[in-house]
Amino acid sequence: MEKRDELYAGKAKSVYTTDDADKLVIVFRNDTSAFDGKKKEALDRKGAVNNQFNAAIMEKLQAAGIPTHFEKLLSNTECVVKKLEMIPLECVVRNIAAGSIVRRLGVEEGKALNSPTFELFLKDDALGDPMINEYHVRSFGWAEPEHLEKMKELTFKVNDVLKQLFLDANMLLVDYKLEFGLFHGEVVLGDEFSPDGCRLWDKDTREKMDKDRFRQGLGNVVEAYEEVGHRLGITFQYD
Amino acid sequence: MEKRDELYAGKAKSVYTTDDADKLVIVFRNDTSAFDGKKKEALDRKGAVNNQFNAAIMEKLQAAGIPTHFEKLLSNTECVVKKLEMIPLECVVRNIAAGSIVRRLGVEEGKALNSPTFELFLKDDALGDPMINEYHVRSFGWAEPEHLEKMKELTFKVNDVLKQLFLDANMLLVDYKLEFGLFHGEVVLGDEFSPDGCRLWDKDTREKMDKDRFRQGLGNVVEAYEEVGHRLGITFQYD
Ligand SMILES: Nc1ncnc2c1ncn2[C@@H]1O[C@H](COP(=O)(O)OP(=O)(O)O)[C@@H](O)[C@H]1O
Ligand SMILES: Nc1ncnc2c1ncn2[C@@H]1O[C@H](COP(=O)(O)OP(=O)(O)O)[C@@H](O)[C@H]1O
Ligand SMILES: [Mg+2]
Ligand SMILES: [Mg+2]
Repeated sequence: MEKRDELYAGKAKSVYTTDDADKLVIVFRNDTSAFDGKKKEALDRKGAVNNQFNAAIMEKLQAAGIPTHFEKLLSNTECVVKKLEMIPLECVVRNIAAGSIVRRLGVEEGKALNSPTFELFLKDDALGDPMINEYHVRSFGWAEPEHLEKMKELTFKVNDVLKQLFLDANMLLVDYKLEFGLFHGEVVLGDEFSPDGCRLWDKDTREKMDKDRFRQGLGNVVEAYEEVGHRLGITFQYD
Repeated sequence: MEKRDELYAGKAKSVYTTDDADKLVIVFRNDTSAFDGKKKEALDRKGAVNNQFNAAIMEKLQAAGIPTHFEKLLSNTECVVKKLEMIPLECVVRNIAAGSIVRRLGVEEGKALNSPTFELFLKDDALGDPMINEYHVRSFGWAEPEHLEKMKELTFKVNDVLKQLFLDANMLLVDYKLEFGLFHGEVVLGDEFSPDGCRLWDKDTREKMDKDRFRQGLGNVVEAYEEVGHRLGITFQYD
């Protein structure tokens, strides 16, 4: 697998073409951002931790029957993935109220939801990733209706798998964001699953073990990510 | 029908109990508000115009098989309605992009949508009526799933009826907001349908004939509402 040109650099990862037209290399950088990029910092070891964390989760999901883009680890901070035609939507499931929903809907942080919510956001930095619904997706053509159905089905399936996985390691999966793309016409889970894109609380103390530590300036951000990984049995390699 | 105590006063209407426990009187006031009540004005004749306009529309909808709360006109500014247990949701359908969706999703005002969108807002002044989705309704118990289904069905049915009604009078029904409630367990259209809660454009000139004239300080607000009524064959009575 030969890494070639940078295709694009996002806020936390960079994506490279390879000698295989169907494969990309994703480089997990230390860059961390929040609040539409208004808060930014490079956090030591984060790239390596998220890359290896994501690899472990993607393998679990794949094993549970969820098609993912993940192929293999390439180095401590890099992995090989299927090249997807990304769908510009973020799929969010919430099991417990936290973050934006608390402010927007006036619910108490930590309130367990009667049933998990599914939310859609348009992935558009300039617009601040606005919340949308399924009618908007259809009216503006952001995804085919049948692809959206599949994304929803897979997003909930991920919840079944990961809620239990984290619970078994004494953590609560509060919420998470997924991105999907098309691989030769099939809806496939892309991007990453890491503490950068979900909320995880210690089950007993409800201590935050995710990117909210960065957003809220609580410190020990990467240390918390590592602790999440250790509880799941992941051993991290660093350069 | 004896009007008794004021039950509540909203931003544009006041609601009174009557000697019939199942009936209320709604008084349409001249008060007009926008931007979460930040812009406010009393507009001469508006109460009478909206009351009589609403009566005519509710009768059309009732005739088309949509259950409404409307019973009869009581005076130029008052009508008798069924007392509903209101559901705290606003149902919005858009046929053409205008208003908040233009800013939020970066679409051009006036763009015809491929298919109408359905949006839900939580009716909560303190929270600024945030947009929500059907999962939120379920998770937070704002309506029973089967009631929400019915609201959606009726909201789209209103579109079929009114799009054509306005088109026949050379106007475009751009978007509108409906509120529903329960009457002895049945989902019934409540509140009002008037140029205060919808957008109507002249079909040829695209001149605004609705509350956007007030929001945008275009003047001749009530005159435009009257013109909409006249085009539909409504003759208004004033005190
Ligand atoms: N398998 C894939 N194929 C193509 N693009 C991908 C794939 N997985 C993720 N991406 C894209 O790569 C970028 C990841 O970089 P990231 O730093 O997360 O970007 P962003 O700032 O947009 O969140 C995103 O634009 C994401 O949509
Ligand atoms: N049939 C009905 N039964 C009970 N309440 C109603 C009915 N129709 C409308 N309402 C309520 O009456 C009030 C109407 O007044 P309005 O000035 O529109 O209030 P708001 O400021 O909340 O928009 C709203 O709270 C609305 O929900
Ligand atoms: Mg990203
Ligand atoms: Mg109102």
